[in-house]
Amino acid sequence: MGLVAAYATAGPRSPFERTMIERREVGPKDVLIAIRYAGICHSDIHTAREEWGATTFPLVPGHEIAGVVEQVGSEVTKYAVGDRVGVGCMVDSCGECRHCLAGNEQFCKRNTGTYGSRDKDGNPTAGGYSTHIVVTEGFVVRIPDALALDVAAPLLCAGITTYSPLRHWKVGPGSRVAVAGLGGLGHMGVRIAAALGAEVTVLTRTDAKADDARALGAHHVRATADGTAFRELRDSFDLILNTVAAEIDLDRYLRMLDVDGAMVNVGLPESSLSINLMSVVGNRRSLSGSPIGGIAETQEMLDFCAEHGLGSMIETIAAQDIDAAYDRVVRGDVRYRFVIDNATITA
Amino acid sequence: MGLVAAYATAGPRSPFERTMIERREVGPKDVLIAIRYAGICHSDIHTAREEWGATTFPLVPGHEIAGVVEQVGSEVTKYAVGDRVGVGCMVDSCGECRHCLAGNEQFCKRNTGTYGSRDKDGNPTAGGYSTHIVVTEGFVVRIPDALALDVAAPLLCAGITTYSPLRHWKVGPGSRVAVAGLGGLGHMGVRIAAALGAEVTVLTRTDAKADDARALGAHHVRATADGTAFRELRDSFDLILNTVAAEIDLDRYLRMLDVDGAMVNVGLPESSLSINLMSVVGNRRSLSGSPIGGIAETQEMLDFCAEHGLGSMIETIAAQDIDAAYDRVVRGDVRYRFVIDNATITA
Repeated sequence: MGLVAAYATAGPRSPFERTMIERREVGPKDVLIAIRYAGICHSDIHTAREEWGATTFPLVPGHEIAGVVEQVGSEVTKYAVGDRVGVGCMVDSCGECRHCLAGNEQFCKRNTGTYGSRDKDGNPTAGGYSTHIVVTEGFVVRIPDALALDVAAPLLCAGITTYSPLRHWKVGPGSRVAVAGLGGLGHMGVRIAAALGAEVTVLTRTDAKADDARALGAHHVRATADGTAFRELRDSFDLILNTVAAEIDLDRYLRMLDVDGAMVNVGLPESSLSINLMSVVGNRRSLSGSPIGGIAETQEMLDFCAEHGLGSMIETIAAQDIDAAYDRVVRGDVRYRFVIDNATITA
Repeated sequence: MGLVAAYATAGPRSPFERTMIERREVGPKDVLIAIRYAGICHSDIHTAREEWGATTFPLVPGHEIAGVVEQVGSEVTKYAVGDRVGVGCMVDSCGECRHCLAGNEQFCKRNTGTYGSRDKDGNPTAGGYSTHIVVTEGFVVRIPDALALDVAAPLLCAGITTYSPLRHWKVGPGSRVAVAGLGGLGHMGVRIAAALGAEVTVLTRTDAKADDARALGAHHVRATADGTAFRELRDSFDLILNTVAAEIDLDRYLRMLDVDGAMVNVGLPESSLSINLMSVVGNRRSLSGSPIGGIAETQEMLDFCAEHGLGSMIETIAAQDIDAAYDRVVRGDVRYRFVIDNATITA
């Protein structure tokens, strides 16, 4: 490989600018992917703006990557040139620990983030806001033909981050699931939970997205701003998938859980929240969390989404508009995921 | 029945005094129990001192009751005069809801607390600090002969409150369990977890109770005061049974949980705590809670404790010393449960 074009930011208050970055040579087990689309995840923004701690700059974010295989190493067996593939939040892991051996690479202590991390050679990793990426085949997944690459890209993070806990907490027919927040993660949570057969309620501040929520498969939509819903829906849910990254009143949400219910957090507010332990002692509830998912599960999620026709709802942008898109994501002004058309990076 | 002797408190700052209280007539399904011993639970103190909200006075606490059947109603089938029996935190429930039908009476919205509640006739309930109690047979459990009544009494709350979550979270051989706090609940948690085959670590502020902890079955004891344990034990436990009612740093405890681990709270601090959701998102952890257990499970717990010789470690007191005992419980100065010798109530 060598130098490829990318969009990078030089600091927490710097705009994104076109630059050239080094991609490693394609090793025996590597796959070179020509990136077609890259989703913009709120994590990209938190990292680029140093809201989650120190970031190493320059930074090329992007861990919702969809593209086409352009070259494969001599030992690659799973992929061939022309295959439609994706890359998510990880590009490597130790491969030896009990988590890796169990296919739960997301829990490996030595896994490698797609960007802002360091690979096994000690070089900084750079994400999907670029024309190409080189990834070991074990961390590449196949995008089924039934999914267009643009609507598939966000599945690599927003899809797996919601699919994994919905499966882990055994959501299926009869499950009463609430999805709190209708954004990038939330809208996929609704689609997947509904496809799994659950009765889905969307909890959102206002009624502004009610029609969208129903179109995505929600059976009920409740506005939370006036507080009525919290009282009326006490003990009503088996699972609350909380995708809200803003600060919320955990106790009010927890009390909506029935016996043995879990509130699973996949959004991360910047500061700590308050909790009264009575909220979990009553009804034997759990306040839980879940990070992405393993590679095999990511493939399973893509296959599931293809089978059920569950792409992400997206708004495609040019790379030149990343900064404006970030501001709109922070304002909640996107329905429901920005996806960069990577053809614009070389332009 | 009629009037029986009891020890009651008239208000949050009043001493306990001997009084007479009304017990209902023994109905067809009722059991009249001559109470031999009543444990003093921290909940008694919270309620008597109005630390958990308003209390109706006069109050006769006590929900760790061990005694002998003195009379049975005409339709009672499970118990006969002379049987050794116990009563815990509930004396009735609706009997019709899905929780009651599943044997999870602790989740019934209309269950009746052993004291400080109202029975189906609307009369206030009074607990074990008295010579007799009348309870419907469905809420009476049998104390196996292998357990002395005095060491069995605390099992009716401290035993079931720790046994139920240990079973629910499937603790057994291979489980790495930490018990935080070595008090009335904690010491039973250690005994039961060890008897279930778990590797048990006691987390306690200082080393003062280390020998006791090992005698109770703990394999490891770690003092938490200097903070070292929290760093050294990261990702180490499958379950933390938190029996500490004081305010603790939830994040430090949660980070000691391995993947899919749960911190189950059975102690209740008076105020809310702070939590960083990253503590549960990482390792897919859960912050959970558990209230007592169902009646069938309480019987199962007593049989288990009898089989394994697991009584409570107690200090027996006279009813005249309840106030002093309360102060000692609050100071943590009891190893590990005060039990009232109810023969002293009539003295």
